[in-house]
Amino acid sequence: PKRYSITLLPGDGIGPEVISVAKNVLKLAGSVEGIDFIFQEMPMGGAALDLTGVPLPEETLSAAQKADAVLLGAIGGYKWDKNEKHLKPETGLLQLREGLKVFANLRPATVLPQLVDSSTLKKEVAEGVDLMVVRELTGGIYFGKPRGFGTNEKGEEIGFNTEVYATYEIDRIARVAFEIARKRRGQLCSVDKANVLEASMLWRKRITAIAADYPDVELSHMYVDNAAMQLVRYPKQFDTIVTNNIFGDILSDEASMITGSIGMLPSASLGESGPGLFEPIHGSAPDIAGQDKANPLATILSAAMLLKYGLGEVNAANRIENAVLDTLNKGFRTGDIYSAGNKLVGCKEMGEAVLKSV
Amino acid sequence: PKRYSITLLPGDGIGPEVISVAKNVLKLAGSVEGIDFIFQEMPMGGAALDLTGVPLPEETLSAAQKADAVLLGAIGGYKWDKNEKHLKPETGLLQLREGLKVFANLRPATVLPQLVDSSTLKKEVAEGVDLMVVRELTGGIYFGKPRGFGTNEKGEEIGFNTEVYATYEIDRIARVAFEIARKRRGQLCSVDKANVLEASMLWRKRITAIAADYPDVELSHMYVDNAAMQLVRYPKQFDTIVTNNIFGDILSDEASMITGSIGMLPSASLGESGPGLFEPIHGSAPDIAGQDKANPLATILSAAMLLKYGLGEVNAANRIENAVLDTLNKGFRTGDIYSAGNKLVGCKEMGEAVLKSV
Ligand SMILES: CC(C)[C@H](C(=O)O)[C@@H](O)C(=O)O
Ligand SMILES: CC(C)[C@H](C(=O)O)[C@@H](O)C(=O)O
Repeated sequence: PKRYSITLLPGDGIGPEVISVAKNVLKLAGSVEGIDFIFQEMPMGGAALDLTGVPLPEETLSAAQKADAVLLGAIGGYKWDKNEKHLKPETGLLQLREGLKVFANLRPATVLPQLVDSSTLKKEVAEGVDLMVVRELTGGIYFGKPRGFGTNEKGEEIGFNTEVYATYEIDRIARVAFEIARKRRGQLCSVDKANVLEASMLWRKRITAIAADYPDVELSHMYVDNAAMQLVRYPKQFDTIVTNNIFGDILSDEASMITGSIGMLPSASLGESGPGLFEPIHGSAPDIAGQDKANPLATILSAAMLLKYGLGEVNAANRIENAVLDTLNKGFRTGDIYSAGNKLVGCKEMGEAVLKSV
Repeated sequence: PKRYSITLLPGDGIGPEVISVAKNVLKLAGSVEGIDFIFQEMPMGGAALDLTGVPLPEETLSAAQKADAVLLGAIGGYKWDKNEKHLKPETGLLQLREGLKVFANLRPATVLPQLVDSSTLKKEVAEGVDLMVVRELTGGIYFGKPRGFGTNEKGEEIGFNTEVYATYEIDRIARVAFEIARKRRGQLCSVDKANVLEASMLWRKRITAIAADYPDVELSHMYVDNAAMQLVRYPKQFDTIVTNNIFGDILSDEASMITGSIGMLPSASLGESGPGLFEPIHGSAPDIAGQDKANPLATILSAAMLLKYGLGEVNAANRIENAVLDTLNKGFRTGDIYSAGNKLVGCKEMGEAVLKSV
């Protein structure tokens, strides 16, 4: 059988619970499709801080770099919120993205017919939403230099960051986005603030240049403030969105909330080569950690993305996606997506239900 | 009678139509309250580009600086979209904000009971939303230096901008926001990205420091990605939001769309002293320009903000606000807020209806 090594990073809060469930689903789907996994669990985020004093230990990063793919639960919690920057769980996540060079973050936001009522948007606005945000993940203001604190001419304290993009960074994320749009409905909307920012002007110029290689994809441009509005007004207008790191952070979260079921949404972060990083969109939810209440479906669907985008194992990926739909059709619901007439279950029971359908 | 000089900047697209209506409303409300206005119309935006070659002629800026308040319609249009940066209508608007030193942008987003159905959000989510975004308007990445284009070590082209805030810039917008929250429901939510950006860390530190002077206001902090979600999930949780220039651009547009009636929303931009700048949130809508279809209520309500925040003429401001509510109660609706059972009118007829209620 084929054999892949997977680094599991359970992290904090509900992370360990959802990872443990997703691991079992991955194992079973693999064994049915003739795939073996070797799993290695490593500490990351707050858990790593408590254990080793840093949010991303070297051993964790190098294990992840050597793996075929990385599956992350969630990181962060009140306990480490006041930490200095280099000792924040979030800093560990940024270091992991940088260390794995995963510059392309794919965040699908889909409204499943079974869950359309979970959205705060009217049914006719929410139903049928099926979009993908492609977010640049290792550049822009998150990593740009110079950054830090200083004083201005008047001697006052200042805090500053640099939003910067180079052509190669824009070109490579553009290609990922055009390829994805091509496999979807053939529409790509690039979001920027080119009426104000030079970094966005270069972004728009390069996206437009790369478009020449994808004549079958229809490219449009939208300002970020308008995009934030249009996602609320008429989200169905979007197929694939490509945008920079910070705008992608904001818009992908907005898009995910429009579906009303954040506990359902997976993500994939990919580089040129090397292992991809797969994780649910949701956070570590410390308030419900350890109570068997978390929705494991986002992590299970992240495992499906791992199979599809990370390992090219499309059959095993489809098997998991179908099992999730099947489980929802049978009426299983965790608290976050519960509605009357369905069966309320915990994290483990949801996992067992999915296993039965794999 | 009291006498104020008002600079009118009709601008582009539907700008002239809505300004002409709002001017009449301002005149009448003034005369009832014993206030005289001297109006001076000046070119700005695309109209100024066509006339003088620049988007903000010196005469326009100096007229605005000498006025008691400035009322702007809207700027921009397809015609000037491909212009170089310094010849874009938007650049004129940024120069006007800078020239008037209006660092505090107030953007209320209110769901009126008469218009709750216009929102794409479910009725129970939209009804009762009444929030105010206080956006820093003359700092941050919009104006930060260095900015421009260059090459990196590898000789590749780069585009870059600087997000930078100094303590005094944060302190003064914080005070405006705390004062406003104090007069509203006493809750201020500061939005930043302090888990990643140094500029946001300083922002959070200063907002927290200034809070000591406002013990009656309850301060909370939220990351911008979460704020973009929470506006969709449960917008009623917000009273007053304070945030930086770019996050404010995005979130205030998202908030305005949540109300479903962008054609209704005014804004005010204020400095330490000197004239304020008042304008509707909506754009120049070139597709319906000159067709008498525009909704003038956002500009009329901007005139009310001009009276209240710009001139301290609260009675005249209330008179206009009540006239607008009265007109809506009578069933007058422009196309953008029309629903069955109401009376569809154009821009002028809506203006006449409001005049009757002033
Ligand atoms: C935790 C934080 C650093 C991170 C980000 O801003 O990228 C998160 O919001 C995300 O979107 O994955
Ligand atoms: C036109 C543009 C420069 C402007 C901005 O980004 O500030 C607009 O979007 C606004 O919010 O007033």
